[in-house]
Amino acid sequence: MTKPLIQIALDQTSLAPAIDVAHNVQGFVDVIEVGTILAFAEGMNAVRTLRHNHPNHILVCDMKTTDGGAILARMAFEAGANWITVSAAAHIATITACKKVADEFGGEIQIEIYGRWTMEDAQAWVDLGIKQAIYHRSRDAELAGVSWTDADIAKMRELSDMGIELSITGGIVPEDIHLFEGIQAKTFIAGRALAGDKGAEVAAALRAQIDRYWNE
Amino acid sequence: MTKPLIQIALDQTSLAPAIDVAHNVQGFVDVIEVGTILAFAEGMNAVRTLRHNHPNHILVCDMKTTDGGAILARMAFEAGANWITVSAAAHIATITACKKVADEFGGEIQIEIYGRWTMEDAQAWVDLGIKQAIYHRSRDAELAGVSWTDADIAKMRELSDMGIELSITGGIVPEDIHLFEGIQAKTFIAGRALAGDKGAEVAAALRAQIDRYWNE
Repeated sequence: MTKPLIQIALDQTSLAPAIDVAHNVQGFVDVIEVGTILAFAEGMNAVRTLRHNHPNHILVCDMKTTDGGAILARMAFEAGANWITVSAAAHIATITACKKVADEFGGEIQIEIYGRWTMEDAQAWVDLGIKQAIYHRSRDAELAGVSWTDADIAKMRELSDMGIELSITGGIVPEDIHLFEGIQAKTFIAGRALAGDKGAEVAAALRAQIDRYWNE
Repeated sequence: MTKPLIQIALDQTSLAPAIDVAHNVQGFVDVIEVGTILAFAEGMNAVRTLRHNHPNHILVCDMKTTDGGAILARMAFEAGANWITVSAAAHIATITACKKVADEFGGEIQIEIYGRWTMEDAQAWVDLGIKQAIYHRSRDAELAGVSWTDADIAKMRELSDMGIELSITGGIVPEDIHLFEGIQAKTFIAGRALAGDKGAEVAAALRAQIDRYWNE
């Protein structure tokens, strides 16, 4: 199983501080994400700028695409994104349109799991050739201050067993990494934890746990 | 029942042509929408610019907000939006956060109906004080070239009877307006049909039908 990558989510409301954070973390993250907030704040200029500044990082544009898939996907890939996110709530025709454009650019799409969805939906994504999805910790659980639920982990294992690589997000801390052992984890996503003064330490601690549990 | 308004969706991939279209249609539309495509292309500058150019129009920012609700809502309302869209797939906590910020700005949120949803979800939106939702014609139907389905109309009537004002979109033509008689229609949304050379005629034809069926 390939080793999970570390992804920083840039969710600043303007480009300048996002540029600074990306510069500070580039040495210890593999994936840089233009978060939905930053993308809506600054438009595709945010993607173009970060692509220019970080030519060798995987760049994600978190559009949570729900409609207008072909046009949105083309905008993001032309701006330099490698991956874009598409909402699980999008019509299968929208997901198909995004996948087609992604293939044209050699990019990938990630299904961002929100709302009501079923394993039949997930099978339809796999049947389209989708290889990635993003799994958020249950917000109810997060708000209630509890950790990942058994239900979360069970669903993640089922998706992983279907062949979907998962990017995992929602207050990720090194102490939680062991929970995901055996899951095809594509990336672990964090924002503030990696952006702060202790970012390098947090990244190192995440990698130590990743090396411990994904060591084949 | 208040008369439905006419809304233009600006989905250009850059600001300059969107500014031109808005200028051309301002005389015969009530609501100007910064579509998701335009918002992701140009960021909140698109909202600020259209607010400046059209101070007296209702301005919508179609973010299809799915997460990060408080920050996204604040960005859009601060940029001058009157209404923002929130995805039906968003967690109720996200919808609540958007509603709170909308109330602070005297704005409104519109639930954009995508994905799997239930009338229980709709009741939860109403319980939050949400007054608006956006109903899209079944994309399957649209792709198949068929008109609005009885199932669409039945769901719209049920939502309307719950007290939700609906903005209706999906290849809207004057000949279809009668289908929505008796529904609390907030706006009818069109893009290309209003942006084209015949835009004024299309708007007039839509208004004639609206006056015919919403005449109390």
